[in-house]
Amino acid sequence: MTVWNENRVERTDPGVRAIYPAGIHETIASAIREHLGERTEVRTATLDEPVHGLDGAVLETTDVLTWWGHLFHDNVADDVAAAIQQRVLDGMGLVVLHSGHLSKPFLRLMGTSCNLRWREADDRELVWTVNPAHAVVRGVPPVFAIEPQEMYGEFFDVPTPDELVFISSYTGGEVFRSGCCFLRGKGRIFFFSPGHEHYPVYHHAQVRRVIANAVLWACVDQASPVDTSTCVESPKGWFEEQA
Amino acid sequence: MTVWNENRVERTDPGVRAIYPAGIHETIASAIREHLGERTEVRTATLDEPVHGLDGAVLETTDVLTWWGHLFHDNVADDVAAAIQQRVLDGMGLVVLHSGHLSKPFLRLMGTSCNLRWREADDRELVWTVNPAHAVVRGVPPVFAIEPQEMYGEFFDVPTPDELVFISSYTGGEVFRSGCCFLRGKGRIFFFSPGHEHYPVYHHAQVRRVIANAVLWACVDQASPVDTSTCVESPKGWFEEQA
Amino acid sequence: MTVWNENRVERTDPGVRAIYPAGIHETIASAIREHLGERTEVRTATLDEPVHGLDGAVLETTDVLTWWGHLFHDNVADDVAAAIQQRVLDGMGLVVLHSGHLSKPFLRLMGTSCNLRWREADDRELVWTVNPAHAVVRGVPPVFAIEPQEMYGEFFDVPTPDELVFISSYTGGEVFRSGCCFLRGKGRIFFFSPGHEHYPVYHHAQVRRVIANAVLWACVDQASPVDTSTCVESPKGWFEEQA
Amino acid sequence: MTVWNENRVERTDPGVRAIYPAGIHETIASAIREHLGERTEVRTATLDEPVHGLDGAVLETTDVLTWWGHLFHDNVADDVAAAIQQRVLDGMGLVVLHSGHLSKPFLRLMGTSCNLRWREADDRELVWTVNPAHAVVRGVPPVFAIEPQEMYGEFFDVPTPDELVFISSYTGGEVFRSGCCFLRGKGRIFFFSPGHEHYPVYHHAQVRRVIANAVLWACVDQASPVDTSTCVESPKGWFEEQA
Repeated sequence: MTVWNENRVERTDPGVRAIYPAGIHETIASAIREHLGERTEVRTATLDEPVHGLDGAVLETTDVLTWWGHLFHDNVADDVAAAIQQRVLDGMGLVVLHSGHLSKPFLRLMGTSCNLRWREADDRELVWTVNPAHAVVRGVPPVFAIEPQEMYGEFFDVPTPDELVFISSYTGGEVFRSGCCFLRGKGRIFFFSPGHEHYPVYHHAQVRRVIANAVLWACVDQASPVDTSTCVESPKGWFEEQA
Repeated sequence: MTVWNENRVERTDPGVRAIYPAGIHETIASAIREHLGERTEVRTATLDEPVHGLDGAVLETTDVLTWWGHLFHDNVADDVAAAIQQRVLDGMGLVVLHSGHLSKPFLRLMGTSCNLRWREADDRELVWTVNPAHAVVRGVPPVFAIEPQEMYGEFFDVPTPDELVFISSYTGGEVFRSGCCFLRGKGRIFFFSPGHEHYPVYHHAQVRRVIANAVLWACVDQASPVDTSTCVESPKGWFEEQA
Repeated sequence: MTVWNENRVERTDPGVRAIYPAGIHETIASAIREHLGERTEVRTATLDEPVHGLDGAVLETTDVLTWWGHLFHDNVADDVAAAIQQRVLDGMGLVVLHSGHLSKPFLRLMGTSCNLRWREADDRELVWTVNPAHAVVRGVPPVFAIEPQEMYGEFFDVPTPDELVFISSYTGGEVFRSGCCFLRGKGRIFFFSPGHEHYPVYHHAQVRRVIANAVLWACVDQASPVDTSTCVESPKGWFEEQA
Repeated sequence: MTVWNENRVERTDPGVRAIYPAGIHETIASAIREHLGERTEVRTATLDEPVHGLDGAVLETTDVLTWWGHLFHDNVADDVAAAIQQRVLDGMGLVVLHSGHLSKPFLRLMGTSCNLRWREADDRELVWTVNPAHAVVRGVPPVFAIEPQEMYGEFFDVPTPDELVFISSYTGGEVFRSGCCFLRGKGRIFFFSPGHEHYPVYHHAQVRRVIANAVLWACVDQASPVDTSTCVESPKGWFEEQA
């Protein structure tokens, strides 16, 4: 799998660098390694690498891509965003974190504005499990706190999630659908809102566990053979040999 | 409401003109007038009008837009497609018919390829109700036949519908999710697959009834005041006066 | 439509009677009359009437039933609960309010424990719209406050709602899926959690509006003709005449 | 995991015994062993054993239960059905096969009639994947045929599945939602309609693969710690230590 990160604010803002000295991507990668260990091979990619570190060969061999971006969504090339969208439809998993809700790949896959309300303050976020049968909540307590945390509030303009896993509340009274699953084509998408560059959210034990669970859930280890590459003209009985 | 149509094949193909002498849009408009009568005001718009007949003033005053297009999706301007997408997110209803599954507005709103299998042959389509509690099935029998009909078959690469209303089978054995509801932003979308320019599908009593029901269902008569125009910075207590 | 109420605590507890002098059912009925006016005919029924006021003739002529009960769920006869369940499956709407989550009809229709967390304290509930395209939010602001209010918190053990309309937060930090739609058979169910006998919740303008919207949404004005009365043996071609 | 079977018709009907000499349960168990091998320990239980082979100790140590029953649903004791329902809500997986749609545990969990249309004839069933991102379709072709097969047709009176995986068509033109996922409480339920005692359906390679995939999907290997045992009174701050 591949952990993607803008990796700019870490280099320009000492406050962020103090929390994520090797970049947010390395902290996220360490969470996945911590929980999934030998089950997965983790590499990283960042905005300022050629092709943002996501050329065709990388995408083709990525089962699950995690995405963290914030201020530089526009710097992601349209063709790379389109290639990611296509790879998800072809069976890659995508775990979109925090401000990635406005990233080009996510916007293309959702078809909505993905806007929300926000506040940088000293809120405490409480993350509540509302789907205890779901694979993403494995080992997660009924509620956990992240403090301090940026507020993300409703209305969050995404399609109704195929599965809603977490709902968060904030000190200010807002609520947010903070853990959302979307199935698109042959691929799976998980959006998880916690995470802010100025707070050590990706060092939080439960956040790390959820991300690892999400990676495991999003991994389609053998993509379906259904053909979605084009509209296939299909003469009567086309499937007789296969079926 | 506004009935949109490419309105080209009717002018070039005598076979189509014989079935839809005034254009497919007029036949669809007549179905809506037949069932909804005084409850709605129906106008039409077509591809070769300026701005495709869908300038800002028209869209702004359209509660529900129906869409029929087939061979000339690419001739729809990107900015018109974007404006339609935005109007849906702001509360307009959209009823997408048949080959409109590959239209630009629908593709943008779905985020998937919207590809499917197809066959122009002599199949009989059977349309089965699988959601009898839904408003779109009002007055519709448990199953109705359309014959002859073009085949549209799975896998249909759309997001899981928020509500699945009809499933069709074909003589050749294929199945298709032929009546699908999608909620996006403040708007409602209904996709209904029956309809082919070479067959009198839009003269079919049940097809006409479903389209009218769908228009009624898709009509959000008072859009929600939630603000989705941007990510709104929201200081603590921002809602106190409103709430 | 019929408004059902236990109507016991109003007669024994002066505090409740002060808020709901004619019983909670009359206050709810007045909300529906206020918003729907001539469009609907409202009658009431209570636990201590014969057959709880819900004999076959009443149920048969009820399009939508609202339900408020709290301490005496067990006093509802099993056969009445079963008859209500059957009427919903046959196309009646059901609006279940507050502590009705543990009522026999709701439990039978959900198939889960319907348990939740609760606290009688001085919380403020904030009700957030998370589905602005839904008919139930018509005219409802993005957020509204109910204070003071009993807390109902997650995990709420119901099936995933077919449509989630509202999420609430409480001063204590809990969240709750407070407005939930369920389609069952040919009928529609709306659960709305606000409401407590010791607080004037059913006098709250937005609560009254939501209840009226929900009644309108839940009303299936012409039940589908699909046959769900039994497993129907269906010889090949059974539908030819109908289709 | 535990494979449950009525195991009566195999003993009384030589035709069935010829196809399933050791009982349908042994054939189903062999499918699971074939695909999951060492990953799972399979035992069987049948109607005529004490407590139907499903006493508390068995249920408590069962991660996934598969269910096949047809003519003797009424012979299952109510308290056993209730115990199964409770175990699912507490995190057990349940895979309900074919005529198990009318079994007591399934009816209790669904809350609907679960009725459908049916025909014992010489239909060919075609099973189509409509959710290629789902774990249950791993290794399954886009369509596969089962012939001959009993027809199960819509309308199938179940709640809208949380995830719809397969839709079937039949020679007679009917359609059926043949692979349906339901999340209930902390547990997962998969209904899979193929399977008839007079046909060798459970020897079919793809049917066997789907059942094994479904067992794997339904297995919640560590139930969520959310408390659904009762309505929990929760004083303000109850979660502070945990969160």
